[in-house]
Amino acid sequence: MAAIVSIPEDSDFPLANIPFGVISTANNVSDISFIAISESIYCDVNIVAELIHIQPEKRCATRIGDHVVDLAAVAALGLFDGPKLKTEATRVFAQPTLNEFMRLGRAAWQEARAKLQTVLAAPSTSASVHTALVPLAATTVHLPAHIGDYTDFYSSREHAFNVGVMFRGRDNALQPNYLRLPVGYHGRASSIVLSGTSLSRPCGLIQDPVSKDVFFSESKKLDYELETAFFIGAGNSLGDPIAIDNAEDHIFGMVLMNDWSARDIQAFEYVPLGPFLGKNFGTTISPWIVTLDALEPFRVPQPIQDPAPAAYLKPGIRDAYDIQLHATLTPKHSSKKYMLSKTNFKYLYWTMKQQLAHHTVNGCNMLPGDLLGSGTISGPDPTSLGSLLEASLNGKQDVILSADGSVTRRFIEDGDSLSITGKCEKVINGKRIRIGFGVCEGTILPAKKFEFNK
Amino acid sequence: MAAIVSIPEDSDFPLANIPFGVISTANNVSDISFIAISESIYCDVNIVAELIHIQPEKRCATRIGDHVVDLAAVAALGLFDGPKLKTEATRVFAQPTLNEFMRLGRAAWQEARAKLQTVLAAPSTSASVHTALVPLAATTVHLPAHIGDYTDFYSSREHAFNVGVMFRGRDNALQPNYLRLPVGYHGRASSIVLSGTSLSRPCGLIQDPVSKDVFFSESKKLDYELETAFFIGAGNSLGDPIAIDNAEDHIFGMVLMNDWSARDIQAFEYVPLGPFLGKNFGTTISPWIVTLDALEPFRVPQPIQDPAPAAYLKPGIRDAYDIQLHATLTPKHSSKKYMLSKTNFKYLYWTMKQQLAHHTVNGCNMLPGDLLGSGTISGPDPTSLGSLLEASLNGKQDVILSADGSVTRRFIEDGDSLSITGKCEKVINGKRIRIGFGVCEGTILPAKKFEFNK
Repeated sequence: MAAIVSIPEDSDFPLANIPFGVISTANNVSDISFIAISESIYCDVNIVAELIHIQPEKRCATRIGDHVVDLAAVAALGLFDGPKLKTEATRVFAQPTLNEFMRLGRAAWQEARAKLQTVLAAPSTSASVHTALVPLAATTVHLPAHIGDYTDFYSSREHAFNVGVMFRGRDNALQPNYLRLPVGYHGRASSIVLSGTSLSRPCGLIQDPVSKDVFFSESKKLDYELETAFFIGAGNSLGDPIAIDNAEDHIFGMVLMNDWSARDIQAFEYVPLGPFLGKNFGTTISPWIVTLDALEPFRVPQPIQDPAPAAYLKPGIRDAYDIQLHATLTPKHSSKKYMLSKTNFKYLYWTMKQQLAHHTVNGCNMLPGDLLGSGTISGPDPTSLGSLLEASLNGKQDVILSADGSVTRRFIEDGDSLSITGKCEKVINGKRIRIGFGVCEGTILPAKKFEFNK
Repeated sequence: MAAIVSIPEDSDFPLANIPFGVISTANNVSDISFIAISESIYCDVNIVAELIHIQPEKRCATRIGDHVVDLAAVAALGLFDGPKLKTEATRVFAQPTLNEFMRLGRAAWQEARAKLQTVLAAPSTSASVHTALVPLAATTVHLPAHIGDYTDFYSSREHAFNVGVMFRGRDNALQPNYLRLPVGYHGRASSIVLSGTSLSRPCGLIQDPVSKDVFFSESKKLDYELETAFFIGAGNSLGDPIAIDNAEDHIFGMVLMNDWSARDIQAFEYVPLGPFLGKNFGTTISPWIVTLDALEPFRVPQPIQDPAPAAYLKPGIRDAYDIQLHATLTPKHSSKKYMLSKTNFKYLYWTMKQQLAHHTVNGCNMLPGDLLGSGTISGPDPTSLGSLLEASLNGKQDVILSADGSVTRRFIEDGDSLSITGKCEKVINGKRIRIGFGVCEGTILPAKKFEFNK
């Protein structure tokens, strides 16, 4: 499918993707009066934008190749003419977050994606759609949604086992609940940041494992966690669970996530109520939400679940997705990306449908924009571990990153950048299809000095 | 201090209180055009309201006795003429939540309280303020804030000890971290409901403690937790901790809270990541936020902390408040309130200042409207236990509620209503002062039938 702009062959964002996000531009090229004037004229937005002077406003967008498509502009052109969006598109896409679009439900998301695939294809059904195109470099990308609540699961059996072996030995590695339900906990929504945001190394109380002394320090065991997460689209009322057979209709789409973790702070604080300051100093997500409809060709069977889950968690046949996930580390003053992990979403023991059905089975209510994380995704072999905790055996051995062995890590050092990428690839009818997620990147800055008692 | 309306002697809401909340009325008597017309005329709002027809709109309010004072109306009258509110009052008090007012900071909250105490006193400095008065019975009270994130602490040493003894024995009752830092966890913000909201008994996976069988069931161990919680006013930026000496300036005020808990669901799920479905089906708060300024006369020393906390948690001299807290149970079809607990906020081992300093010491950011709970507040004697878990020794003994022993509970039964009340009382200069919180009430409905696989 050719598009109205050239899309690089290895792009994560072909017309088959159509992810959703939020952007702003220095000058609001999606301003309705401007669009009306320029309809059916192809504009170089970088030049034209200088002619108008409006405060940058966030609005919804999709991405094709290295261009962004301003959905508020597409809506202003009247191109969303289907039954679900005709009366809603102008309102929902002009919002500073995707929450109102998410609330409309899956039929509306499918209608938007299909329409965009038509008008952005070459030849397009709309000449004027060119006016909604902005080069990515001319935009600022923002958090795609207001995240009311954020939950993180622990759904990689390999990860849970590896961590369990370290702390409880092989025989008791998995807790009794692990194979019965998708264990999860509430995370902190306020500190979820967009890819590209730097975070300061956190400080907290740490216990010396030998002397048992407790002291205040910057974290010496700062780690990443390679995760994905999904956004809730339409929610449910308090008291009314989401049945697993309906769960996919409530899932708007997926992003990549790095659940930064201070292992030493976490180790002292987490009994009995779970992770807290070891996690809530920052969580990074990628900006473009990839829909389940885009991922549909990449469905694969999930791992066999034994014992069989309870009825409310009854799995389907192919509830996993074959998403290749890579994590790399770039040291300060370096441009090299050293591979940390090559893993895959399909390894997860518990599926997104099961996570959502479980989360609501007690009546807990979801709202559009809520975020549910997978937990660290580790695979079966040593190259597929999704955290340094596992790769360095909690700091007991070097993880060798460079071929010559000169670059090693046990945990993250100041100035390190972590990048997570994800993509699906498949040959369908002799043609390679690729759907990607872009990048989830963040850099760790040195701990801030802070005067506690003023 | 006499007020412009009669305030019952035992009211929680004298002029010395001035709590903040959110209300709506069937007809918006605070409509600005209406106020302008009626200025300086005393109106019976119940009669006049019928003459105007506007959609009910939420707006900010305070309460005196059995009347509500519509702050949007007070602002429209131009009565907030101080430096912090003069240009902001009309905007912030017309909002459907208190978040924008909270964001202004403590000087603005103090200015609002002082001004309201002046104009609502008899003789008032403003005749027109009568037009902002609404009888409580003519209003609907709403959640006072948009709660972005909700955290619950575990700060009652007595509660932690009692629970610890049950599950680990007396010698290991308190975890090693307990006396070092205020243990807490992230809760679910979406399911926080206002006093008066009924909740359905939750269902989930439960493990038989003897056979170890795991089965799906409605909770058989549904419990309440008597708590208080405080709202964040002005927040902090990600990466910048709040120093304990500044913490009070970030605390907008307090409410009562019932952290409903399904002990059997919680027991199976909570290792290693903490409480989840056992808690997130519902949390009830009282509607009127009582400021720290109103509570100032009731400051008392907090418990002695040994070992001395880390520098960032350094306590003041009188960081606790003498707030008497009662929990009562009313069975279905009964009007009797049986006493469950008489406890006090002052028993808490960790103070609100310490909770907030701890929560942000790693750089975690707070936003206006975030809610931080105390954890169950138990006192030193058997009548001051803040949960049925403790009073019934996890269901092993009856808790006798009625004098004749005919009404007992081990856990909450369908149809039971739980009420929490709180008040401060003191004689100052020969006059009794009382500051109260109103009520935090909720009823448990039978579990809903749900078809899991459609």
